Amino acid sequence: MPRACSIARALDILGEKWSLLVIRELLLGCHRFNEIQANTGAPRDILSDRLRTLVEHGVVERVPYQQHPPRDEYHLTESGTALFGAITLLREWGDTYCGDPPIQFTHKCGHELETRLICAHCEQPVTNRNVRRILPGAPPGSPAR
Amino acid sequence: MPRACSIARALDILGEKWSLLVIRELLLGCHRFNEIQANTGAPRDILSDRLRTLVEHGVVERVPYQQHPPRDEYHLTESGTALFGAITLLREWGDTYCGDPPIQFTHKCGHELETRLICAHCEQPVTNRNVRRILPGAPPGSPAR
Repeated sequence: MPRACSIARALDILGEKWSLLVIRELLLGCHRFNEIQANTGAPRDILSDRLRTLVEHGVVERVPYQQHPPRDEYHLTESGTALFGAITLLREWGDTYCGDPPIQFTHKCGHELETRLICAHCEQPVTNRNVRRILPGAPPGSPAR
Repeated sequence: MPRACSIARALDILGEKWSLLVIRELLLGCHRFNEIQANTGAPRDILSDRLRTLVEHGVVERVPYQQHPPRDEYHLTESGTALFGAITLLREWGDTYCGDPPIQFTHKCGHELETRLICAHCEQPVTNRNVRRILPGAPPGSPAR
């Protein structure tokens, strides 16, 4: 039996290049089908399909911007906007390991953007070595795979 | 022309459910083909193909664990291990928006894991509203799409 896992569930919605690039465009402020298509390079039929899936799962919503003829644009919902962190860390990974960064980002403090993932409680870094998985039904402290 | 983008480059390697679930398994300490296959539910031929791609891109490496007959297991390289943050934020997103979290995580401080993405310089939160993109050739401060 495959693991019950939130990563797998998330990727059932997002798990493919085009969906995450659509989220990127919406985060960048591009909301119309044609600009999303041009900026991602997604084939139009695939893009329609991915947008429909994202709308069905409540990650994206359609917002009318014109009445005659009726036209919608696409906006992130709360859950869609919440993908910002995952997208940012994927981008940083690409910047580090997939060649020269094509775009620079700065934080509002003025520095080039460089992020840290920390624990909301102790404010120390979160790494694969300092988190522990608690499997359903397992007593705390048992080996967690 | 599609945007030059590190997210797109990263997803050229990772952009599909199975590759990221393989990274999940390796982060969890499962290194052998059969356990990765069982824990992801990936079809064997697709799993072989995704592992080959990840090895070719230096995200995963093969490590022999038996001589007769020769058998390899799979380990994350430095770049593979660096996907921990992106995977963690995808998992948290799934925990929040895709139903009850199937597994709990704790940080070494003892609290249930809850992360914050902060700027390494000013230590303030990083959000889509407080980062600015600097497009190649654009003067600082110009609108960034």
